[in-house]
Amino acid sequence: MESVRITVRQDEVPFDRDVISNILERFDVEIGRASIREINQIVTTIEKRLGVKFIRMEFGIPGLPPCPIGIEAEVEALREMGVPQFYPPFDGIPRLKKAAAEFVKNFINIDISPECCFPTCGAMQGGLLAQAIAGRLQEGRDTILFLDPGFPVNKIQNRFLGLQSDSIDFYDLRGERLIEALDQRLSRGDVGGVMWSSPNNPTWICLQEEELKGMGELFNRYKVVAIEDLAYFGMDFRANYGQPGRAPFNPTIARYTNYYFMIISSSKIFSYAGQRVAVTVISPKFIEKKFPNLEKNFGKERVGTAFLHGGIYPLTSGVAHSAQHGLAAMLEKANRGEYDFLAPVKEYAQRARVFKKAFLDHGFHLVYDNDIGEPLADGFYFTCSYPGFSGAQLLEELLYYGISSITLQITGSTRGEGLRICVSTTPKEEFERLDFRLRRFEEDHPV
Amino acid sequence: MESVRITVRQDEVPFDRDVISNILERFDVEIGRASIREINQIVTTIEKRLGVKFIRMEFGIPGLPPCPIGIEAEVEALREMGVPQFYPPFDGIPRLKKAAAEFVKNFINIDISPECCFPTCGAMQGGLLAQAIAGRLQEGRDTILFLDPGFPVNKIQNRFLGLQSDSIDFYDLRGERLIEALDQRLSRGDVGGVMWSSPNNPTWICLQEEELKGMGELFNRYKVVAIEDLAYFGMDFRANYGQPGRAPFNPTIARYTNYYFMIISSSKIFSYAGQRVAVTVISPKFIEKKFPNLEKNFGKERVGTAFLHGGIYPLTSGVAHSAQHGLAAMLEKANRGEYDFLAPVKEYAQRARVFKKAFLDHGFHLVYDNDIGEPLADGFYFTCSYPGFSGAQLLEELLYYGISSITLQITGSTRGEGLRICVSTTPKEEFERLDFRLRRFEEDHPV
Repeated sequence: MESVRITVRQDEVPFDRDVISNILERFDVEIGRASIREINQIVTTIEKRLGVKFIRMEFGIPGLPPCPIGIEAEVEALREMGVPQFYPPFDGIPRLKKAAAEFVKNFINIDISPECCFPTCGAMQGGLLAQAIAGRLQEGRDTILFLDPGFPVNKIQNRFLGLQSDSIDFYDLRGERLIEALDQRLSRGDVGGVMWSSPNNPTWICLQEEELKGMGELFNRYKVVAIEDLAYFGMDFRANYGQPGRAPFNPTIARYTNYYFMIISSSKIFSYAGQRVAVTVISPKFIEKKFPNLEKNFGKERVGTAFLHGGIYPLTSGVAHSAQHGLAAMLEKANRGEYDFLAPVKEYAQRARVFKKAFLDHGFHLVYDNDIGEPLADGFYFTCSYPGFSGAQLLEELLYYGISSITLQITGSTRGEGLRICVSTTPKEEFERLDFRLRRFEEDHPV
Repeated sequence: MESVRITVRQDEVPFDRDVISNILERFDVEIGRASIREINQIVTTIEKRLGVKFIRMEFGIPGLPPCPIGIEAEVEALREMGVPQFYPPFDGIPRLKKAAAEFVKNFINIDISPECCFPTCGAMQGGLLAQAIAGRLQEGRDTILFLDPGFPVNKIQNRFLGLQSDSIDFYDLRGERLIEALDQRLSRGDVGGVMWSSPNNPTWICLQEEELKGMGELFNRYKVVAIEDLAYFGMDFRANYGQPGRAPFNPTIARYTNYYFMIISSSKIFSYAGQRVAVTVISPKFIEKKFPNLEKNFGKERVGTAFLHGGIYPLTSGVAHSAQHGLAAMLEKANRGEYDFLAPVKEYAQRARVFKKAFLDHGFHLVYDNDIGEPLADGFYFTCSYPGFSGAQLLEELLYYGISSITLQITGSTRGEGLRICVSTTPKEEFERLDFRLRRFEEDHPV
């Protein structure tokens, strides 16, 4: 993750086209459909081959040091408590369940009991199991509807589970229009769950209370399960969601429906992606409901029991014991107001503001720019396009200028022209270099 | 896990029948089919209610302190390397992949490259993914055949995946007869994979080289995938499998077929169950093979790519970063001969020898006692029955005498009369108390 300093003078972009073309050919992937991992490998190969340093904007990984509270709690659990000996309780250590329930109360203002909070191996496992439950709840309702664009891996999960998927694009559907489109789609009766992230990966649009309210009413009416991925919890920095027990509280679908999974990741807010620990919250009403159809794959009819004994247990037998203590300690400190977990990650917003400006200054446009009248928040990601380029063409062309990204196409977007730009691993000091490269790109591609 | 010392005089068994009956009624489970977890909860409830201490033999958890090498390596990874910031490589950190390949060479004498070794969130995740691949490899071959009795959760995994399962019972099928029965079953053409553990949970019988050889030939002939669960690696203490690079080497199916998953757990050999870290090895020939049918659920045809990008990635995005360093360090020390990992766990064999004798002295019989002419090895588990009792009756009746276990029924055994006894958490010092309780049981139930 260290950033090799290269002076602007050394930046002889565009890089050697033949070499890069050859590498692209050798990888034999359709660049517009290449996964994040594949782009990652391609760019690393180019860097090694040409001895150059890219501005890496393809990968949504934390670019900040991990929260030390978690580390010290893990060390204590390992050394003093000897936790590696003991299988973790599958439903989570009581300490983490309690801290998670309090966190949900303090920062989201939703009352749930610790029994509704389940540690999972990352938000990834939570998303997989939530889809598994939602898609198998009722016969003939095995479609998960994604509010797109979104996190590509959620669709890989859907495919692993053998479920169906469909998609609604936020692009021209916000506010009332989103609710109408959702109503129309749910009325077909084949959807078991609806999944999205807010703040949204990759557009960083944030669903607003009115939208969540309308969605919640539909979920109640159609008995469809909401799967709310809060991977970027609190990171709509237009408001301060980081004060325990004080408004404003983070928006959530949990205020408006009884059918929800709410997934809280530690990867971004605590820069703790490496330990694969998150919490999945199941609605207190939903967790008690029984569905005969769950019996087939989970051996249990009750939602909570199916999730636990038919899900977490056979998948991984719970979550690494020390990591549970680590996350519990971080949540506890946040709950007591002793750790302002949003303060360090504001760095991402500052980066986004600066880098977004560089793109816009050099002829790029935001693709998703509509946050219902408000200016888009600055955060982990933004989307952009350039006149006359498809997303795949733009991704490839920017490689010659030492900038890597992914297409919106692979995030499920209908906008073929767009790219997702992630700011997380590029420090602000790189602005000059980015600006120089984008200027060269603009000069070489006059509109 | 602490053992409360109660003098034999206080041991007024049988315990209060009415109280225990009421608790059993309240749990509303059919005792013969109760899961390990359910028995666990029932016994804990009885202990609390009556203020008594059971001899807990239901749960197959490590009863020894965790290997300190792993703990210190995790602490270093957490504090010095800051690994929580970084998503672990999905295919595993290079250090662990290398150590695993060397471990397989040193103790199993099989040559594989680090690329064939994948960390998984416990052997659990390895077993799930191995079944997912084996059961989806070819159209019409979605049955996993279990050599039973076995680990009950593997069937819960099978159900989660929506696969079919079938079973062959070791009881009267060892040696030639096992191969014949397997041949017959595989010839029906619907089996994609065969799964077993050796040493076997719960019988502690160990498949012998001749059996593995016969099985391997069948797997090659029928193109069926072996899923070998080495949860109790090296723990057939009749031989010393713990010397790196020196015979005898741990028996394995990998010597006899190109179609295998081999799953090596850290839970028992390193008493490291809490951190959910294991290694799944895919055969070097099998990993490169392509099956069009894998495309549907994994998006990839190549076995290794499907396992990784269509499996580990969408399930958990890899394994807790520090735990990977922990396991790597333990394997490295074992590889260099600096840590004799089998020395501490021999304790289980000593317990089994003593406790087994107590059961046999008081009228119990071993159910599975045939290890092809050899006396059964002593290890984590053994099986037993008592004249005139079904397994369910015996399980319940022993509860009144303060001894907990599970029925063989839930392990897939055809032997309705048997129980699985696990010695792992009962220290040898408890012998007197166990002996006393079993004697009282025998007196109250004369044959």
